[in-house]
Amino acid sequence: MSTTFAPLQNDTFLRACLRQATDHTPIWLMRQAGRYLPEYRATRAQAGSFMGLATNVDYATEVTLQPLERYELDAAILFSDILTVPDAMGLGLSFALGEGPKFAKTVRTESDVAQLAVPDMDTLRYVFDAVTSIRRALNGRVPLIGFSGSPWTLACYMVEGGGSDDYRLVKTLMYQRPDLMHRMLAINADAVALYLRSQIEAGAQAVMVFDSWGGVLADGYFQAFSLAYTQRVLNQLPKEHHGQRIPRIVFTKGGGLWLDDMNTLDCDVLGLDWTVNLAKARAAVGGAVGGLGKALQGNLDPNVLFANPEQVAAEAVKLLDSFGAPHTDRNTNGPTHIFNLGHGISQYTPPENVKVLVDTVHTHSKQMRLRR
Amino acid sequence: MSTTFAPLQNDTFLRACLRQATDHTPIWLMRQAGRYLPEYRATRAQAGSFMGLATNVDYATEVTLQPLERYELDAAILFSDILTVPDAMGLGLSFALGEGPKFAKTVRTESDVAQLAVPDMDTLRYVFDAVTSIRRALNGRVPLIGFSGSPWTLACYMVEGGGSDDYRLVKTLMYQRPDLMHRMLAINADAVALYLRSQIEAGAQAVMVFDSWGGVLADGYFQAFSLAYTQRVLNQLPKEHHGQRIPRIVFTKGGGLWLDDMNTLDCDVLGLDWTVNLAKARAAVGGAVGGLGKALQGNLDPNVLFANPEQVAAEAVKLLDSFGAPHTDRNTNGPTHIFNLGHGISQYTPPENVKVLVDTVHTHSKQMRLRR
Repeated sequence: MSTTFAPLQNDTFLRACLRQATDHTPIWLMRQAGRYLPEYRATRAQAGSFMGLATNVDYATEVTLQPLERYELDAAILFSDILTVPDAMGLGLSFALGEGPKFAKTVRTESDVAQLAVPDMDTLRYVFDAVTSIRRALNGRVPLIGFSGSPWTLACYMVEGGGSDDYRLVKTLMYQRPDLMHRMLAINADAVALYLRSQIEAGAQAVMVFDSWGGVLADGYFQAFSLAYTQRVLNQLPKEHHGQRIPRIVFTKGGGLWLDDMNTLDCDVLGLDWTVNLAKARAAVGGAVGGLGKALQGNLDPNVLFANPEQVAAEAVKLLDSFGAPHTDRNTNGPTHIFNLGHGISQYTPPENVKVLVDTVHTHSKQMRLRR
Repeated sequence: MSTTFAPLQNDTFLRACLRQATDHTPIWLMRQAGRYLPEYRATRAQAGSFMGLATNVDYATEVTLQPLERYELDAAILFSDILTVPDAMGLGLSFALGEGPKFAKTVRTESDVAQLAVPDMDTLRYVFDAVTSIRRALNGRVPLIGFSGSPWTLACYMVEGGGSDDYRLVKTLMYQRPDLMHRMLAINADAVALYLRSQIEAGAQAVMVFDSWGGVLADGYFQAFSLAYTQRVLNQLPKEHHGQRIPRIVFTKGGGLWLDDMNTLDCDVLGLDWTVNLAKARAAVGGAVGGLGKALQGNLDPNVLFANPEQVAAEAVKLLDSFGAPHTDRNTNGPTHIFNLGHGISQYTPPENVKVLVDTVHTHSKQMRLRR
């Protein structure tokens, strides 16, 4: 816990999270350590399975750093899964090759919920050890982001037992037994909070809550069953660690309609998917120079990376321009943009297009600042 | 073509489409003739396959009327599929049991697109015959809605060959070869327009465009690749037939963020999914009494129908109240609401809950009007 880490050389990402002026727009990509990289596939083949990779500190460190060797990314993100917490609750997470996550046990009845509890963080030691190991290996190059699934997103998987097309089981429980759903979400929120706090103590320099399935909820239910429990997580997180601010990012896929609601969250950054107009989002929640607001992260359609390199570059420029000029006054806060995709990068992405994207974002965003 | 049909007894749905005052809020349900009904499953078993059902005039008539025997629905919708047009283009539509649609041929290359053409409407004669047969069988009880998939939604299936998680192939084509995609969408739009015109001539009293996959597009691309071609369809439809107004409904699933854009469409009704706040949508596009605006259709989460009957009734009341009191002045137009689900009804729905829903909507919406 008292580990000292190397000083940070590139703080662009952390500054942008806190709405501070930067020399360029920082970029990182959700799932940047992943199957689109041949070196990742090689390591995964050695590890035998996804969980074999995620639970082994050396492998997790190796794959986390792989994309940084290829691209000038401004942040690293812990290699792990959004569902480690319910796994630690004893539900038995696994990934069959080429398929989504599956739980051996599900949570569907009153007695299932009664058996749920915030897990002993010792069962998640492998995650915290990986955080510390990655932070050491990064050696101050870029900051390290820790993360978890949101309480609602965890509940979706816990009830359904895996992915779903219609969320019929989890929504049936929610509509029929809102009391049980609230009980489950409170436990999930407290578990996620403890989990993220432990990641911060282990060395995470920012934390992100992935509300991957918040967007499937009806208006009204999103606020009560997803947003409120994300806020319950945020309430329990330290804003600083060893004197350093720990920015918090919340990303609800399909949450663009609820941006005003999300603006009330006690977090620093809102993640956006590609359906959101970045200029409108900036106007709605980005705040003024010298005023309060949220930093915005996103929101390129991952499928843009299947276009030709010139087209990828053009789309990156278009997105940067739609956010518009970020403020450049180092004495005050103002609207900032962290470039990212609107969802995890596809396993079929040509790696060379990622280089075009990262380099274009850096080059063009520097030019945007000079032009002012 | 010169068929005379029985006079309409219940015009509540058509009036609400045109923002005219009604005594109650009309209700119908997307996919109301479907697998949740045991009598539908029995007919489908006789027909052997979904397409066997849809292409046989007698079966299509029978299943279209089945839900009207059980529930006091205010409209009937042609039993068919959104993908009949690409099937008529020669792509070979089929449905394996328990699975989504599949096309034998896909459209992915320049030469594939070059071979596309607006199909001869004679190959869709089975649809128009079904429309006329259903209209006769309805005998004026309620109006009959005709429909098609939107040009973009058809293109998704034509390129992907079936459903998709990530729309990688269709979006790759769109980002790499926007020229080809525009060519395909123009052909689709002209084909859909001809198809809907033929349905109107055969007896459809309102038409609906299902833009089921418009919501997967990035901001900017939705407007250029989906909305513009839906408008191209609308441009080619007659507003009246034999002196009767033919209302047009456009439903983009996941389109709530683009409501202002959709408000520019030359249609009468906008369909909404459950993520949209009905009160806000009314304020944004519903228009004032005496002013222009769109009627709104939707938007109950279909999963509400898995709750207990009292809960289903409570959710229906909540949704009606969130739209608020419709205008009651028969001398002018004003905001109106057509009750529906935010997506097709699930095959697992308990049929008795649908009765609770329909009856609650009628009873409560009458009370809302008396209270004023």
